[in-house]
Amino acid sequence: MKHISSLINNNRLWQRHNELANHGKTENGGVNRQALSNEDLHARKHIINWLKKLNIEVYTDGAANLFFRLEGINKNSPPVLTGSHIDSQPSGGKYDGVFGVLAGIEIIEALRENNIVPKSPIEVVAWMNEEGSRFAPGMMGSGVYTGTRSIEDINRIKDDNGITVSSEIKKMHSSFPNLEIKEFGREIKCYIEAHIEQGPVLELEQKQIGIVTGIQGKRTFKIEVTGEENHVGTSPRIVRRDALVSAVNIIENLHNNIWDNEDVTRFTIGKLIVEPNVPSVVPSKVVFSIDLRHPDEKILIELGDKISQICLDNSKPCTVTTKELVHDKPLKFPEKMVSKIESFTKKLNIDLMRLPSGAGHDARYLHYFCPTGMIFIPCKNGISHSPSESVKKEDLVAGTQVLAETVWNFAN
Amino acid sequence: MKHISSLINNNRLWQRHNELANHGKTENGGVNRQALSNEDLHARKHIINWLKKLNIEVYTDGAANLFFRLEGINKNSPPVLTGSHIDSQPSGGKYDGVFGVLAGIEIIEALRENNIVPKSPIEVVAWMNEEGSRFAPGMMGSGVYTGTRSIEDINRIKDDNGITVSSEIKKMHSSFPNLEIKEFGREIKCYIEAHIEQGPVLELEQKQIGIVTGIQGKRTFKIEVTGEENHVGTSPRIVRRDALVSAVNIIENLHNNIWDNEDVTRFTIGKLIVEPNVPSVVPSKVVFSIDLRHPDEKILIELGDKISQICLDNSKPCTVTTKELVHDKPLKFPEKMVSKIESFTKKLNIDLMRLPSGAGHDARYLHYFCPTGMIFIPCKNGISHSPSESVKKEDLVAGTQVLAETVWNFAN
Repeated sequence: MKHISSLINNNRLWQRHNELANHGKTENGGVNRQALSNEDLHARKHIINWLKKLNIEVYTDGAANLFFRLEGINKNSPPVLTGSHIDSQPSGGKYDGVFGVLAGIEIIEALRENNIVPKSPIEVVAWMNEEGSRFAPGMMGSGVYTGTRSIEDINRIKDDNGITVSSEIKKMHSSFPNLEIKEFGREIKCYIEAHIEQGPVLELEQKQIGIVTGIQGKRTFKIEVTGEENHVGTSPRIVRRDALVSAVNIIENLHNNIWDNEDVTRFTIGKLIVEPNVPSVVPSKVVFSIDLRHPDEKILIELGDKISQICLDNSKPCTVTTKELVHDKPLKFPEKMVSKIESFTKKLNIDLMRLPSGAGHDARYLHYFCPTGMIFIPCKNGISHSPSESVKKEDLVAGTQVLAETVWNFAN
Repeated sequence: MKHISSLINNNRLWQRHNELANHGKTENGGVNRQALSNEDLHARKHIINWLKKLNIEVYTDGAANLFFRLEGINKNSPPVLTGSHIDSQPSGGKYDGVFGVLAGIEIIEALRENNIVPKSPIEVVAWMNEEGSRFAPGMMGSGVYTGTRSIEDINRIKDDNGITVSSEIKKMHSSFPNLEIKEFGREIKCYIEAHIEQGPVLELEQKQIGIVTGIQGKRTFKIEVTGEENHVGTSPRIVRRDALVSAVNIIENLHNNIWDNEDVTRFTIGKLIVEPNVPSVVPSKVVFSIDLRHPDEKILIELGDKISQICLDNSKPCTVTTKELVHDKPLKFPEKMVSKIESFTKKLNIDLMRLPSGAGHDARYLHYFCPTGMIFIPCKNGISHSPSESVKKEDLVAGTQVLAETVWNFAN
């Protein structure tokens, strides 16, 4: 048999990314399609509609994850699962998450159109709320499916308007009354997620495919610097306890001590709040976030453990407290998965490289549930979560081809 | 005649500071009595009430400035004017502004009780809205009185609830229907303002009285650093344009270049806002304020003119813009006023020093209208605009005694 990947309809695949982007389309060309919103609902309807005539089973579960099943010869075999998510950040783009779902859809559609039946079933999933922007934290659907979190905990979570996840899941179920609601944690043969890189490495290295080796570890902290309000016109420096002066000093020293020449460490202060934050008053308090990531757990521990002391050493005459909020260990996808995906890519003569994922994905939770791997394609300037998120059609097609070979081979 | 200052009723003076602090009293022992508020209205009623039986003329003007007049032998002579303001910051204390008004009230009350009539009239003023917290900018009443600003411009200004100065002045006028509304810009013989230092110098130097030589100059700037949003987990440093990293670098270099060893320069970044200000996104924008003050105009110009270049030199890979908002030149009170107040203080055997004012005051505008001087008393730790604002009773009495001698001598 020739490559399964040659059955892909490139234009249909590309066109559907643009079509789906109409659900939640923003004025600046971006997408705002937050989890369980009406835009999410309409996008789901849109996808289901595409598959109507193809006799592909669609079902859901108690977390409003959405599944599409291409039946296999062995109906009782656990399915090969692929997919990602279709929810977006408030200022999202057309590809983050969507690509993984539409690539999977294209594959099962192409197989069905060509009357090709895999040994094991192939399923495509759109996980509920990967982004965590409307309901925090994210990766809810995959978290509940894999038993990492309980549906009860998730149901209670509210958005800024006080609307619960529970009521929005009910709305989603009643909007699709014909879909069977299956149980969580059904056996999966393996899970492959295709996604845009959300980073610049593939573009810089001019590779069309990234074989993801794992997801880097993350530690987050909240730093609170406390000084004293004073009149800016009258207080000499000698009597001041300016929390912003101390915070700037701390941040400079964190940069100097945490950053590496190799540029592997990710160290970011994304949020910083000053009190009382008026031009005429010496700041009495500064609170800032730290997001520290590294693929090597040993280095992640070493760097993260330095933070508190660096803050203390550079806080005078203010005081400082450091609180760790999250410690997610790095994970490595099984070498067997990585090398197999790599070999399928090589057979297609596509330029590839191995790389770790900087961002978290639903694959994080699936990793602890079944053999899991990921495929990256480049995105322009490494930008995602932005209206300017952009990919090349040929890269999107290449990623779908690699996914098709991978899914097909694991299913047979 | 013995010292006029010996007629001051120390306990009454002290007690009234506590009484007035009930209007706008906050839970933490501070005062929130913003301009033209109900608290301001009640405080005005309270003061007027004290003077009712003493046949002291009370009047107002189109800006709701409030005047108390002790008639002189020469009714046609321009009055010696003293006073300050009774409005406070939202988190103010008991003494900022209030001291100058209550000291003046005590003086004319003591003179009247003792049937002592000055040659020229002595008037006490409570200027409307010195603080500028509810309606910005401040020093409104003195600005309009001296012709620095027009009443039409001020009338249009709104508070956060959309209420105009105009409507609140009307409310104030209708609440005191018996007060004559006099014109702005009536001739003044001279203006003396007593105030707490709002700085630590007198306390550090252990002096009871500060003879204010002038008000330092001020330049304010708005700095805008623009970078690019990015994913904190995926973007290496080499591709980032992190606005907070650049802002921190700029601020460090501003500190290094603007601060002086002598600790005379006042350089403060009081307000800093990060966008989008979430832990997981590389900051795309930082906007911060600069408040730069110096008593020497030459140095003020030199330092202020450096800022833009320092910002440019340290902003890479982000871009930066610098906008100057205010340039108030330093002013020196006439040496004749300073040395006379100094000599009256010396006659009372009170420890004194000359010093410039770090803060702005209504005296800034009066300076350009009539001979003007100021008297400072120490405040605890130099703290003002705070519930912990505190002065010693003996210092408050000493300040009032010096003001009494000064006002009396200028009026005779």
